[in-house]
This record gives sequence, C-alpha cells and structure tokens, in this order.
Amino acid sequence: MLICQHHDDSLSLHFAGKCIFQHHRDKPALFTGHGQERMDMYRGNFEIEDYVEQRMALSDVRATETAAGGWRLEFRRYPADSLQLAVHFQVKGAALHADFSEADEAINRLWWRAPAAARDPVWGCGEQMSYFNLRSRRFPLWTSEPGVGRDKSTQLTWQADVSGKAGGDYYHTNYPQPSFISLSADDASTPAYCLHAETTAYAEFDFRHAEFHELQFWAVPQRLEWLVAAQLTDLVGLVSSRFGRQPTLPDWITGGVVLGLKNGEEHARTILAQASAAGVNVAALWCEDWAGIRQTSFGKRLFWDWRWQPQRYPQLKQWIAELKRDGIRFMSYVNPYLCADGELYQEALASGYLATAQDGGDYLVDFGEFDCGVVDFTQPAACQWFAERILQREMLDIGQDGWMADFGEYLPIDLKLANGVDAKLMHNAWPVLWAKVNAEAIAASGRTGDAVFFMRAGYSGVQAHCPLLWAGDQSVDFTRHDGLQTVICGALSSGLLGNAYHHSDIGGYTSLFGNVRTPELFQRWTEMALFTPVMRTHEGNRPDDNFQFWQDPAVLAHLARISQLHQALQPYTRALSQQAHEHGLPLQRPLVLHYQHDAATYDIHDQYLYGRDLLVAPVHAAAQDSWQAYLPVGDDWLHLWSGERYSGGQHVTVAAPLGQPPVFLRAAADNAALNAFVQEARASL
Amino acid sequence: MLICQHHDDSLSLHFAGKCIFQHHRDKPALFTGHGQERMDMYRGNFEIEDYVEQRMALSDVRATETAAGGWRLEFRRYPADSLQLAVHFQVKGAALHADFSEADEAINRLWWRAPAAARDPVWGCGEQMSYFNLRSRRFPLWTSEPGVGRDKSTQLTWQADVSGKAGGDYYHTNYPQPSFISLSADDASTPAYCLHAETTAYAEFDFRHAEFHELQFWAVPQRLEWLVAAQLTDLVGLVSSRFGRQPTLPDWITGGVVLGLKNGEEHARTILAQASAAGVNVAALWCEDWAGIRQTSFGKRLFWDWRWQPQRYPQLKQWIAELKRDGIRFMSYVNPYLCADGELYQEALASGYLATAQDGGDYLVDFGEFDCGVVDFTQPAACQWFAERILQREMLDIGQDGWMADFGEYLPIDLKLANGVDAKLMHNAWPVLWAKVNAEAIAASGRTGDAVFFMRAGYSGVQAHCPLLWAGDQSVDFTRHDGLQTVICGALSSGLLGNAYHHSDIGGYTSLFGNVRTPELFQRWTEMALFTPVMRTHEGNRPDDNFQFWQDPAVLAHLARISQLHQALQPYTRALSQQAHEHGLPLQRPLVLHYQHDAATYDIHDQYLYGRDLLVAPVHAAAQDSWQAYLPVGDDWLHLWSGERYSGGQHVTVAAPLGQPPVFLRAAADNAALNAFVQEARASL
Repeated sequence: MLICQHHDDSLSLHFAGKCIFQHHRDKPALFTGHGQERMDMYRGNFEIEDYVEQRMALSDVRATETAAGGWRLEFRRYPADSLQLAVHFQVKGAALHADFSEADEAINRLWWRAPAAARDPVWGCGEQMSYFNLRSRRFPLWTSEPGVGRDKSTQLTWQADVSGKAGGDYYHTNYPQPSFISLSADDASTPAYCLHAETTAYAEFDFRHAEFHELQFWAVPQRLEWLVAAQLTDLVGLVSSRFGRQPTLPDWITGGVVLGLKNGEEHARTILAQASAAGVNVAALWCEDWAGIRQTSFGKRLFWDWRWQPQRYPQLKQWIAELKRDGIRFMSYVNPYLCADGELYQEALASGYLATAQDGGDYLVDFGEFDCGVVDFTQPAACQWFAERILQREMLDIGQDGWMADFGEYLPIDLKLANGVDAKLMHNAWPVLWAKVNAEAIAASGRTGDAVFFMRAGYSGVQAHCPLLWAGDQSVDFTRHDGLQTVICGALSSGLLGNAYHHSDIGGYTSLFGNVRTPELFQRWTEMALFTPVMRTHEGNRPDDNFQFWQDPAVLAHLARISQLHQALQPYTRALSQQAHEHGLPLQRPLVLHYQHDAATYDIHDQYLYGRDLLVAPVHAAAQDSWQAYLPVGDDWLHLWSGERYSGGQHVTVAAPLGQPPVFLRAAADNAALNAFVQEARASL
Repeated sequence: MLICQHHDDSLSLHFAGKCIFQHHRDKPALFTGHGQERMDMYRGNFEIEDYVEQRMALSDVRATETAAGGWRLEFRRYPADSLQLAVHFQVKGAALHADFSEADEAINRLWWRAPAAARDPVWGCGEQMSYFNLRSRRFPLWTSEPGVGRDKSTQLTWQADVSGKAGGDYYHTNYPQPSFISLSADDASTPAYCLHAETTAYAEFDFRHAEFHELQFWAVPQRLEWLVAAQLTDLVGLVSSRFGRQPTLPDWITGGVVLGLKNGEEHARTILAQASAAGVNVAALWCEDWAGIRQTSFGKRLFWDWRWQPQRYPQLKQWIAELKRDGIRFMSYVNPYLCADGELYQEALASGYLATAQDGGDYLVDFGEFDCGVVDFTQPAACQWFAERILQREMLDIGQDGWMADFGEYLPIDLKLANGVDAKLMHNAWPVLWAKVNAEAIAASGRTGDAVFFMRAGYSGVQAHCPLLWAGDQSVDFTRHDGLQTVICGALSSGLLGNAYHHSDIGGYTSLFGNVRTPELFQRWTEMALFTPVMRTHEGNRPDDNFQFWQDPAVLAHLARISQLHQALQPYTRALSQQAHEHGLPLQRPLVLHYQHDAATYDIHDQYLYGRDLLVAPVHAAAQDSWQAYLPVGDDWLHLWSGERYSGGQHVTVAAPLGQPPVFLRAAADNAALNAFVQEARASL
C-alpha cells in the first residue's frame, strides 16, 4: 500500500497507487516558520492578517521504515540542524495517516505541499458557496459569517463592508473543513483521493500553484489523512465513514413544505389555514419566535432566552399537540448564546457554565443592543445542562420536533475556556461541539432519526452529529456569489465530504440596502427546493419589506403544487436516504460524482444530480423562458416536462417557464420510486 | 562617528549618536529569502501580490573592522552556513553608507529591521498624499497612478475600482521614494535621522512594528544611507544636498496665476481677456491642447504627437510672442509616450528609440482607444532625440516657457529596454530619467532657472532635475484621501526629502461618477494656492461638466484678488526660494520642521508653514464660517486678517469665511518681505 522511494536529494511516497508526497532538496515539500497573526471579529466577520517572520524550507529529509510498513520522516532545515519535525506515515485501515510529532516548539506556521498537476480539479473544503472546483484559488478555512454580497465588485457587498465589515468574499463560509477531494485529470488510472488535515487551527489551502497544493496551518496539525479509491462514489463513501453518517431523515420532514413563520401564534395559525386551504402540503411549522422577540433599532430580533414565551404563543404546548394530530410538526429555534437579560443566562452564570474573560470575569458578546454569554461547551457539565435544561425540557418536552440550531461560528478568540485550550484553536471546533450538544439532547430523548435540527455552521466531524445542513443566509436575489445558485454549490461541496442532507431558506434570507425578494425569486427557489430533501420557507430578516408567499394567490398556488410534488417524490427521497445511510452518498450530487471521466463536469456549480437518476439545473436568473443545461457523457436524458430525449455530452436548451424547472431523467434508469412523481409532475402542468 | 559594539549574541552600530543597527540572535535585524511576485498593470494602476517561498533570519553575524573605521558585517543563516550577505558600513562625508556586496544569488527578497521606538514619528517616503506621519502603517513604494478616491470606504473609490481598477489606496502615489526621516519622541538628545535605500526595486516600508521599522526590498539594494543631525532643519538641508537642489523658480511664475485652458486658441484668448478685465494677475497661460486633441468615447483626449497643431492654435508662435510682450508666458504639455498614429512615433521607431517587446517586436501601450510607443530613456541617443527634436525644437524654440511633463509612472514591466535591465527594476527609475530628459533640454537651451516644467511622478533623485512638482490628479472635492487636503500632505512629505517647490491643480482634476467641482471648492483651493510658489488653474478632466472660474463673476473677482495677493507675496516667495537654494529648505514646511520639540506637530497633515513666518491652515470642508488650527509651542501668532494674537501650544478657532483663509503670522518675525503683503491683504477685505 505504502511505497517509499528515496535518493540523496529526493523522496516520494505512494499510497495505493497515488503519489501523496514528493520532496526534492531544491523543491521542498515542507516549510515551517513563525508568524504573528492579527484577528479582529466584528459580529461573526473576521479580519485576519498574518506577519510571517520566518518561513524556512525543511530541505533535509531522512526516512526510516517503521513496524508494519510505515515510514518515519525526519525533517531538518539543513543536514547539521536540529530536528524540526518528525512525521510518521502509516496505513490505518483504508486510510494513510501522517502523524506529526516532535515538532520544534518555535513552529507556529507550517506549509505542506501536496503534489498536484495543473489540470487536477479540487472539491470540498467544507461547504463552499461560490466555487465548486477550487483549483486556481486559495481558501482560508475559518468558520465565520459568509458575508452579504460576497463579491467585491457589487455595490451590495461594498455597502455591507462599509456599514458593518460584513461584505465577505468567495471563500467565507459558516462551514469550512480542511479536507479536499481530487483526481487526476490527465491519468484516469490514478485513483481519486481525499486529503484531510486533522486540526482546528486556522488554515489556508492554496490551489493556485501548478505543481502542488500548498496547505498552510497556524499550528502543527495532529495528522494528515489520505483516502484513496478509483471511483469517486467509493471515495465519498469512505469519506462519509471517516467523518460519521447522519441518521436517515424522518418521513414527516421530507414530504411537503416546512412553513417558516415568525410573527406569533395568531399569524402562524392564519397563514397555515390559508396555505392549507390553497392546497399546500404542510410538513411542519417552523416558528423562530417561540421564545419571544426583542425590539431593537435594527428591527425585531429574537429573545435569546430559550423558553416558551406565552405572550407570543399563548397556547403553544396544546397547539403543538393539535398540529401533530393534523400531521403537522412544530419546529423552533435555538442558538448557543444566552442573553444577559434572560433567566437562563443567570442559571448558567451561577453554575459556572459560561466562558469567561481571561481574568475570570464575565465575558459578554455584543450582538447589537443586547449582550450575551457564551455557554462553554468545553465543560461536559455545561453541555449536559444545555441539552437537558434547554433542548430537552424547554423544547422536546413540550412536543417540538426540531429546530434551527443557529450560529456556532462566532466563538470569540479572546475568551477563556474551561479546557484551557486557546480559543483560537477552539474557534473552528465550536460548530461540532454545538452540533454534538443538539444531537445528544435528541438521543437522550430517544428521538434520533425523528426529531431534526439543522445547522449552517460546521467543521470536520459535524457530519456525525448534525442530521441536516442548511445553506445559511443568502441574499434575496439571483447574484452569482450570494444568491440562489450558491445554495447548490454549498450542497455539492459539503455533500462530497459526507453531509448527505442539505436544504436552504426558500426565497433567501438577507434583505439589506433596498435589495428585496421578488415573487419570481421565491418561485424559482421553491422549484429548486423540490429537489432537496427538505423544503422550508423563510420570511427573511425583514419580513415586512419582502415578498411573502401568501401575498399572491398565484405564488401560493405554485407553492401548493410544488409541495404536493415534493410529497410525490418522497419514495425516491426515501430511497436516496437509504443510499446515504448505506453508502454515504449525498442526496444532491455533483455531476462529476457519477461522471468522473467527463472533465466538463469538474466545474459545474449550478446543476446537480438528485440521486443517480435526476439531473436538476435550477433557473438562477430573472425573466427566463428557457434555460441551458449540460448533460454528462455516457447517458441519455429525458426532459421531465416534455419527455424529449437528449444524448449526453452536450449543452441543451429547454423551455423553462415558471413551474417547469429544468430537470432531466436518466433514460437508462428504471426507477419505480420515480414513476408516480413523473406522472404527477406532468399531470400538474 | 561609527561605533560597533558586539558580543556573542548581539551586535549594534551607532552613527553620530544614533543607534542605526541592532541585532540579536533571537531578534535578528536581517532576513533574506525568495518570492514570486505577480504584478498586473492596468493603465498605471498596479495589482501586486507576492508569494514568499522562503524568509529566513540571518541569525549569525560576524563583524570585522575595515580601513578608515568602517565595519564589514557578514551574515549567515546559522554559523555553519555559507555566506548569505556581506554589508560594508563606512562613513562617507556626512553620511553613513552600508554597501551590500557578496549576496547569495538566490536572494530576491530582503527584509531589514531598523531600530525604532513605538512613539517615533516617521515622515517622507516620497510624496505621500494621505498620511504625513507614516508610523503605524505600511507603505509599498512603487510609482503608479495614485487612484481615484483612495479610500475603500467611499462609493467613489468603489466605483473607480470596479470600472477600471483605479480606486487606489492611501499609499498609492506618483512619487514614492525609499527614504524616511525620523526622530526620537522619547529622547530629545538623540539626533534626527534620514534613512535612504539606494535601489529602484519594489520596496515596502512597514512602520507598524513597535521596536523596528521593517524595510522590504525585492532585490538586494545597492546601499543604505543614513544622514544625522540634531535639528530637522539641518537634516533636511543634508537630505536636499544628497539628492540635488532645484534651480530657484523664475519670477515670472511666482507672481500671479497660471491659467490652465485647453480648448484652443480662441477659447484661451477669450478667457484671458475676461480674466484680465476682471483684474486677474495672469502669470502665464498653460494650454495642454497645443498639440491637438483626439475624440474618444471617454471624451476629448490630447493628441500625443508633440508638435504644434495649427488647426487648434492657428497663430501659436506669433501669439506666444505677443503674450510675452504683455508679460504673460506660454506653457504647454508633453509626456514620454508617442501615439502610434503620430509622426514622431514613426521617427522614433525608425531610429530604434522605442522600447520593444521581449522578442524585439514593436511594443504598444493601450491608453484607451489609442496606442503609444514608449521612448526608451535607457538609450542616451533616444534621450537626446526627445530633448532636441521635441522639447527644444517643437516647444522651447517656438517660445514656450514651460510645460507639464506628465506621466513617468507607467513603464510596463514586461518590455525590453536597451540597457538590458529588467523593466521591473527600471520602473521606479523611470520618473527620474524622464525628469532628466526635460532638464537637459532646458539646460541645452540655456534656459535653466527660466523655463519651468512640472512633474507629478518622481523617485529618488528627481530632486536634481525637476524644478517643480505638482500634486497629480486630485478629485474635485474635499475628501480626506483624494481631495484638497491631500495636496498639503504631498507638499510636506516631498518637501522634507528635498523637493522645495510644489503646487497643485486649483479646483482639483478628476471628475467621475457625477462628482463635480463646486465654486466653493475652487475658491478654497485658490486660497490655499496663494501660499504656494505657483498658482495654476485646471479645467479638469471633464471641463464641460465642472465649474470654471469664468462662469461666476464672484469667483472671478475672488481669483483676481488672490492673484494680486500672490503678486504681493512675491518678495517673500523670492526670499524662500533663496533659502531653498542655500539651505535646501522647502517653501511649504511641516510644522514639525521648526517645532520638533512639540510632539503635537508630528501628525499634522493639513496645515503648514509657508516659510518660517506664515502658518497656513487651509479650509478643507464645505460650508465653513470658522476653522480650527493648531499653533505650535514656542511662538505667538497673529491672525492675518484680524491681527489677533494667540499664544502657541493650542488649538484656536478663527473666522474663516470665503476670502479669508486661516493664516497666521509668527509674532516674533520681523520680515520686511511680508509687510506689503500683509498690508495689501488686510486692505483687500
């Protein structure tokens, strides 16, 4: 499995046929050094700058074979120098591990060059919203707000930057992960591989170099890991096994639509009645404001004291039970902060469950006219308290079936944590700790696979705990870097790394600087969401300024029809969930996953396969009557609405009026689970 | 003079009482390495990025005393390593030189740490437009367009960035110079010093570190040089001697206003008549369009074939003679490019005077719908041709008395030059070569000190050739980083480095994206220009969209009055020119130059001393009736208009309506050259 070739000046390692390490004295594979970073956080947006004092090639490498066919590599700057770093390569099951040990303690920067060829595509790095193929760009990996606009050439981004340092850029994401998947574009006989770095330190993966990828870490990582397989489908399965599989989603959430409503019980009852009367298949209500609201100069915010607030939801418990009898579940909202003027904050403070300032004093985070404490998830007792006291007692026990587990990416880097680890090293770990608290509360209630929470933040290992991702806060538009299409890119990149289930806010979320949602955007988003496991609407950050589905009978009717089709698609979705459970394959799949020999699929960020047999090319521009899609080589495809047959390996243009999202059936598929859906879809025209 | 103290682990050098080098094995003073830069030019705006492959401390230093009390320092990365670099420190006249020799040829990056204290102010680095005190910021030093807006928080800058990569930032300047002046804020007994790097490579001076300034060079510099003096006035004199003094400005240009007019002879005659009738004291006409214009989609551009164009100026030669009889000179425009559809281009091409592509083929630069050749000033014959054929024959010989010598900062980095030096290393040198061509043409005509050209571009050594700087292209506004006040900062920083004469476009130049000049801006700018050696108006880049002084009788009257006062101030200006000639002191002086013990003066970028005895605090905001100024410790001050006396060391607020710029006379001054001016100024109210 592991072959080491070494000469005087050079050394290479091959694992399962893939060259994973290549060093030459004049082209060193490893650099170490020392830097002083500056990191400023403003409401989840980070300004990060590094002053690299030293960066030195480790030109001298000595290899020693270890037990069981492993290799220990010792790195020095030059032959006479002291040991800088030792790396122990060893095969562990299906994986190759490179464990770092005996690092010189002055090192706080490490650059690793992984061999690559110029045309090799790269995917992954968590949930990337702008680019599916990461080649030719660099990706800082640090969980944060993704930004508003995310494109320095747009006025919206500039306004967000100026007003709140919040514009973001293409690489900003709630869910980064120092893991990527690649294959050789030049040589199909070389296996595909996944390279994962086990570390929570700030990292930057730089895919701009022709002959290597340079992976930068702001601490010596514990380990690098490689997984290798000829087929991407097998590789993704290995990756999924490595990071942990999600439970299958319950049926109640995968058929019909989850209505996001956040203006109190009466509003929710009214809209639900209206929607039901219009024929909307309602899977659940999702009411963010169950714990109350707070009026700020910015507008209405939620009250971050996670307890039922009777003024806003007078009959909540009883109503939840009624809804459930009608086949409609109730979902709510929670995040890991506790507002300082709430009761739970006082409880947590009294018990010592909150992270503190470095001097042990109280630490509050300003969220804009209100301050919050940070529950310290490095304390097992604090985790247990949050799970039992809040998630179980306040939420599950009154009949809730799920919630948005918001945030996770805001851990300030200057607070003091109980485990004694630098908050800079815990920052990236936080989303996973947060996911675990949620998963454990559900498990403790015996509701795993039934109650469902969904998160936007993530990091390596979130896969094992979070049953459902959501794509975070898009702008309410069709823009390239913050609109509808970014949701697809997020699903595809995270899906390859073992996150099988993904969905998004139908109609987008962020409405700022006069950018508002149109009925058309809402409908196009609805049509895309049909081909995701969970359809969920959102009123957005400024409900009153933005279009809502109940305001236009045509849009309501459209939602009703699509929600019924979602129900009709449930047998297929269920089968895909089963595949996810068994093989680790995501429901939304990049075309390359099944067509890796077709290089034209490498870059496609705005189309996907929904399972093996449906190809979805969502319309992501306004005022379109037709739409172009790429059909991959090796299959014929049937246009869902017209039934017209197209051969693969070409771009085709199909009619795409509202109500007829561009979707194709794989002609060779004989999928009983799809038949009813296809029939009903065509009949619904 | 030069004292070297060395121990096992550390080494320091003191020159004339100033510690100029401090090295410790754990805090090394010198780092070398290797980088790969990316530099993209778009119409004079550069995108520059560096990938630093290695940066290594040269921890091991060995010192050897050389003849005449010099020291040779040998630097190695570690004791057993080969020599990386040798530096020879030796006293040369008033200066200390550190000559670099025997550098390892792999080095293309060098970082030098100059000892500093946290509060030490730093000034200079060429003509800096945004910050006078450079401490706590970094300054890339690369001649380029300065940018439009120059402030990423303004919409104007964003628009300029998006539409043409032209927004710029605080450090962008036509005239950078790797030289700075500093003094000890903590210890008045330590002398002030100037540190200059002799190199034309891209450099970055980083003043953000508490204990050192880090000077980065993209090639091993030839030399570092230190000049030291207790008094800043003496130091500035030494600096001026080092880089070369300008001839004194002729009287014809320092009394009254140079009218910038660029719409043909008839227009110029009309406006001149109107101005003269209104009592404007006209020193000269400056007609950019003497060589004709070219209509592009951007608007009217000049025709870059530097010959009199009779259609536009039918009687030019004769008219120039007439004007001169009336005491009015004629100035024009030239730049170092030749448009490919002009005759001079063909001449230069045929003679081999143009820079070529790397393969020897023609090299044309796109200036927006027209292409130009680059005259290769590394060829002495090409310089001589440009000087004789164009500047002498086409310009001086027809009676012109001066011109704007525009550009100098656009040398593309990928062309091939006759001297064989990489264009990346010639880019910063280009403004000086261009200045020299102009100065030599004037000298060859025996007109030095009489004919005057003015430049915006510069670099180390431009002082010896360019008799007058102008502040480049401000936006037509009061903005912090691209408006009126930046002109002051440019005068002060360049003045400290030996550029005695500075002026600017009255009313600003750049009008884009709906940003247009107001009458008020024009008047405030006129009032500031009164206290500079040369007053010159400019119609701006879009004359038709912007206010012009002849459009409003009140503004014309205001210009007339100020131009008369400029004439009244001429005896003082003449005396200041004499000081510049004898002592190297600039006419516009930062307050700190005469008040270095008053730390409150360190940062002041928007006030100046005009000579020793006038303090000018130009109004740089709209709709002001009063204005605040800082008066330095150690003198009393008389408000020019009211005669009111103020003690120094305080901020004072004075009335500042239009027509009464905030100006103060040093109370202790007994300056006969000022008396007439003061009398006339007060009488003019």
